Amino acid sequence: MRFSTAEPKVAAGSLHEKMREKILSMETLNPHVRAVEYAVRGPIVIKAGEIERCLEEGGTKPFSEVIKANIGDAHAMGQQPITFLRQVVALCTFPELMDSPSFPEDAKWRARRILQGCGGHSLGSYSASQGIEQIRKDIAAYIEQRDDGVPSDWDNIFLTTGASDGIMNILRLLVSGNGSSRAGVMIPIPQYPLYSAAISEMDAVQVNYYLDEDNCWALDINELHRAYQAAKKHCQPRVICIINPGNPTGQVQSKKCIEEVLHFAYEENLFVMSDEVYQDNVYASDCQFHSFKKVLYEMGPEYFNSVELVSFHSTSKGYTGECGFRGGYMEVINMDPEVKAQLVKLLSVRLCPPLAGQVAMDVIVNPPQPDEPSFKQFHQEKTAVLGALAEKAKLTEKILNAVPGIKCNPVQGAMYAFPRIFIPPKAVEEAKALGMQPDMFYCLRLLEETGICVVPGSGFGQKDGTYHFRMTILPSTEKLKVLLGKVHDFQIKFLKEFSALEQLQR
Amino acid sequence: MRFSTAEPKVAAGSLHEKMREKILSMETLNPHVRAVEYAVRGPIVIKAGEIERCLEEGGTKPFSEVIKANIGDAHAMGQQPITFLRQVVALCTFPELMDSPSFPEDAKWRARRILQGCGGHSLGSYSASQGIEQIRKDIAAYIEQRDDGVPSDWDNIFLTTGASDGIMNILRLLVSGNGSSRAGVMIPIPQYPLYSAAISEMDAVQVNYYLDEDNCWALDINELHRAYQAAKKHCQPRVICIINPGNPTGQVQSKKCIEEVLHFAYEENLFVMSDEVYQDNVYASDCQFHSFKKVLYEMGPEYFNSVELVSFHSTSKGYTGECGFRGGYMEVINMDPEVKAQLVKLLSVRLCPPLAGQVAMDVIVNPPQPDEPSFKQFHQEKTAVLGALAEKAKLTEKILNAVPGIKCNPVQGAMYAFPRIFIPPKAVEEAKALGMQPDMFYCLRLLEETGICVVPGSGFGQKDGTYHFRMTILPSTEKLKVLLGKVHDFQIKFLKEFSALEQLQR
Repeated sequence: MRFSTAEPKVAAGSLHEKMREKILSMETLNPHVRAVEYAVRGPIVIKAGEIERCLEEGGTKPFSEVIKANIGDAHAMGQQPITFLRQVVALCTFPELMDSPSFPEDAKWRARRILQGCGGHSLGSYSASQGIEQIRKDIAAYIEQRDDGVPSDWDNIFLTTGASDGIMNILRLLVSGNGSSRAGVMIPIPQYPLYSAAISEMDAVQVNYYLDEDNCWALDINELHRAYQAAKKHCQPRVICIINPGNPTGQVQSKKCIEEVLHFAYEENLFVMSDEVYQDNVYASDCQFHSFKKVLYEMGPEYFNSVELVSFHSTSKGYTGECGFRGGYMEVINMDPEVKAQLVKLLSVRLCPPLAGQVAMDVIVNPPQPDEPSFKQFHQEKTAVLGALAEKAKLTEKILNAVPGIKCNPVQGAMYAFPRIFIPPKAVEEAKALGMQPDMFYCLRLLEETGICVVPGSGFGQKDGTYHFRMTILPSTEKLKVLLGKVHDFQIKFLKEFSALEQLQR
Repeated sequence: MRFSTAEPKVAAGSLHEKMREKILSMETLNPHVRAVEYAVRGPIVIKAGEIERCLEEGGTKPFSEVIKANIGDAHAMGQQPITFLRQVVALCTFPELMDSPSFPEDAKWRARRILQGCGGHSLGSYSASQGIEQIRKDIAAYIEQRDDGVPSDWDNIFLTTGASDGIMNILRLLVSGNGSSRAGVMIPIPQYPLYSAAISEMDAVQVNYYLDEDNCWALDINELHRAYQAAKKHCQPRVICIINPGNPTGQVQSKKCIEEVLHFAYEENLFVMSDEVYQDNVYASDCQFHSFKKVLYEMGPEYFNSVELVSFHSTSKGYTGECGFRGGYMEVINMDPEVKAQLVKLLSVRLCPPLAGQVAMDVIVNPPQPDEPSFKQFHQEKTAVLGALAEKAKLTEKILNAVPGIKCNPVQGAMYAFPRIFIPPKAVEEAKALGMQPDMFYCLRLLEETGICVVPGSGFGQKDGTYHFRMTILPSTEKLKVLLGKVHDFQIKFLKEFSALEQLQR
């Protein structure tokens, strides 16, 4: 039997049906879902998609393409995958390739070793909820090496579905969202909006601590104290989240600053969540990545044996940029063993992280060694990606700072610039009349006039009265120059339109 | 600088530290997480892992291997992947293989088509939160064909991270978990414990409707009415979940029964969640899979245009068994457009489902056609897997029903038998003295004495005073026979031990 597609629509307008209310409507929707905001894929990005479709269908715009600098999606911006990583994943996916002479032995060796640890030697089986044992061991070995010998126990390693999944699950342990005794979650402002979204969804209390824009977005310990004391009046601050290197702010924390944060967490009994997904993305020559764990260790056993810390990593960033694989891990330190068992239980409900993502994570922590056949190519590819990012970080800062009314801190690490923009009072008024945040108004205009898609600072949080946008440094150098040139021209036009250019030039 | 691993342990027992309480402890843990139970990976499975490690380390047990029949993990039990699916995923992962003559053209064509829809033509980019557009279109086309032309709009298709992820996200929209006005979620008993776990985690009210064991686990509409009326006294029933074919119960619902459920949902204003991940796993010759959507359509426009329905599918089951890829999709019908936008927003926080899983899903909905080069092999492999499962379904039912004190309904579909076991009163007493569910006691003994790992019925829910276990039919025929033989011998020994064998034989 075949049905006509038109048939069910006939009665669609009948009186009876119109009177029927939806069971799931905006009125009955879980209000915590309603409260969630996620600017990185918010209204600006939806608009960008509409414009792209319009261009595809032959519509005319004052530009020929949309340049998406809204999300840290390296491959979408043309970055090439690391060959070795893809070889290992392909070998695990289709083991008949083990017989192919075009795959190097070190990739085959790794693939065989991983498949040994998979049920039925297949990437199609579930792994343990914590991830494949061998990969967890490799991760622990990697962390020990990264941290100059600070011990890492593979029993504390959990593979995750990207870092986001790990962050959400740890927050879920800490936060139960029941009214007056609600847990406070300290997050930096500006922040990566996964944090605010998770806090909304879980009905916890967001406790903002502001990064110091005048000091390269450094974390100021006095500000932590202020935020904590203020929050204690209306919630129970239980956890502090740190993003280092910073997203969206691109700063790299000093060792001294990390020590201060850890001391503060120790004194105030806060659980520490350290988002270190950009640990390989450090560009400034005077900066270095220090893991929270290593710094904690160096503070001595009283700290190292007591501060509860979880660190997150991901396949999506670094030099691999494998976002689509949804790979990541977390290391939990000093977690109560019974709670750890509860975490395993919670994770088991979703069975396991995707196995291809686990394999990708393994390659990152267990890359080709100098005596292996793939080392040279791997090293070249890795160096090329990180070198280009470092160059683009500098370029972005330099060009942005030459634009009237834009001020950009150095992009020390991560993948983003978060420049401050001067929005003329008249433009602020016009935005408010439209019921819009001034920087949303700015970014929408930028998109509509130039095709450049960046995310307004209001989506990440910022000090009242200041305005920013986040842009990635991921487009190719050539395209990045076009983008920055367009931002320059737009900004001047925008300032002129709202009669503020002369004022700035005075 | 290198640290000794011993160093930080020195002060571990210091007085100061011992006095320090954990921030995250069993007392402060989110109580909704604590309430979560997930038997499929629960205490029995943890015990099985311990026994396996013991055997590996040369320990002696009355058996040489643990046979895991606790989880629907086909590849772990030796099922081979479908070659074509893996070829397409490998090609997408490592596009250099496009030049390889050992990959068939139809696989290459599909891989190219999917990569066209990926940012930067790479599996390493994020997809849209709903999934890759082309794959969503393929899924809609597949559903239309499956349902003999009932229209499917690709705008209603969402790729997911396995079906579990989709189920959790839809429940999250429906349930806010705030005290007295808590949403009731109707679920079958026995159920797949993802449902009870999600309900616990989200602090909703679990509303049980009991399947009719005496009638092949059929869903009885009168029981739905009873459960609904009883629940209305203490919560707001908002959603009904159906698993068809059934997990853990293996029944396949008749068209008439589905009509009754949909009519009931329509009358009582319930949102319908239809878990159809076993739609390709129907073995009984007198049974057929009917999708809830098609049945709804056939009930006429008044129903088809109003009942809010979400159907779930997965790459993990069927004939592919690709659990590790974490692929799946859901189709939402009659969802309020504003709510749908909220769903997209919620999903966007986790960015996107893993791309390899999306690709695997595409192969399932877009398999080789008779005129394509891979058709023959694909068809052979698919038929072999489903044929073996059908054979094992029969075998399992037959052997179990020959065991004294065990009664097993036909395994009409899915991947499980859920036999009822007679547990002698003396054994029930002993279990209770140990603070254990009687069927947990039974399954632990079975595991310890035979190495067979099955999940107690109490983990899925069952009528008071009845006992069951769930076992998969996934081991190879040979191993399945060993397993069933061991169950037979164990059961007789168990009955003897608790002085109940003669009673049964009388």
